[in-house]
Amino acid sequence: MDYNLLSTPPKCLADFNLVPIGTGEASIAEELAEVERLLKHTGVKHTMQTTGTVLEGTWDEVVNAIGKAHAAVHQRGVAKVQSEIRIGTKNR
Amino acid sequence: MDYNLLSTPPKCLADFNLVPIGTGEASIAEELAEVERLLKHTGVKHTMQTTGTVLEGTWDEVVNAIGKAHAAVHQRGVAKVQSEIRIGTKNR
Amino acid sequence: MDYNLLSTPPKCLADFNLVPIGTGEASIAEELAEVERLLKHTGVKHTMQTTGTVLEGTWDEVVNAIGKAHAAVHQRGVAKVQSEIRIGTKNR
Amino acid sequence: MDYNLLSTPPKCLADFNLVPIGTGEASIAEELAEVERLLKHTGVKHTMQTTGTVLEGTWDEVVNAIGKAHAAVHQRGVAKVQSEIRIGTKNR
Repeated sequence: MDYNLLSTPPKCLADFNLVPIGTGEASIAEELAEVERLLKHTGVKHTMQTTGTVLEGTWDEVVNAIGKAHAAVHQRGVAKVQSEIRIGTKNR
Repeated sequence: MDYNLLSTPPKCLADFNLVPIGTGEASIAEELAEVERLLKHTGVKHTMQTTGTVLEGTWDEVVNAIGKAHAAVHQRGVAKVQSEIRIGTKNR
Repeated sequence: MDYNLLSTPPKCLADFNLVPIGTGEASIAEELAEVERLLKHTGVKHTMQTTGTVLEGTWDEVVNAIGKAHAAVHQRGVAKVQSEIRIGTKNR
Repeated sequence: MDYNLLSTPPKCLADFNLVPIGTGEASIAEELAEVERLLKHTGVKHTMQTTGTVLEGTWDEVVNAIGKAHAAVHQRGVAKVQSEIRIGTKNR
């Protein structure tokens, strides 16, 4: 296989759950509101559910949006952020 | 917060577990060998463990490598691929 | 801490995503229908979502139901089953 | 299928990552040390890795140990605990 020709998948469906660590607050509602605002700003299709946020788009769009969500939560002063991401792709 | 100024984190530690779906084989050893070759090709620092592969690098490097791992497994004819990713970042 | 006095949490909220491995079918709809029937049989409160199934109940009820879901899918002849579970608990 | 005859799998391999929420400390080393002591007490076979703890045993043993790990961390005063569990089983 010529790995140089590989590009990331054109479509994916992901569900991620972001956890701020070391905030001193059991509620993470403020951080999730920040993530929601960031996702709206990015324009990536998303739906917030009980235990995670579902994203749809190209692989690059989706993982970039989650990376920026980490950055946004760090900007609020949170020292560590962890996400758990389920991500699925299909053959064209 | 000015979301236009946000970039993805400069460092992350991730652990991912990739599952090919619909292969007709209970063993996923060949697909994992493909992922291993792809990871070597990308040059991203990685360690294979019992239940997942640990990656270290910038956010973009790490998630790009996982996306290419999906693409490589699809190229082998696997219709659906799912990964579960744990990814952590720290404030600079 | 006296570990002998510890019991599992009286309440939890979980979201799980079950994947049958080696079925030869890209669709896992039949296996998920089986999981749904099993969950109804157990009586544990559950909601199926796009990328997983949400369960609520005592720790023991919830993890027992997921274990039985694995067993039900194995009974259909599936050699390997993997689940990814997010599970959260709160202090009383 | 007669769901009443189903029991949870006799063997599983799991990898879990526990996160205490709202502790006010970015380090979760003390909580992980507690989890380690609890796991030793339970006697379930386990190995701590970079991004999670691997457990082997019957389904019931493994999920019971993780539930007690949540309980032990709550006893230290942590309000919320979340785990992400990857768990795999095979047909006998």
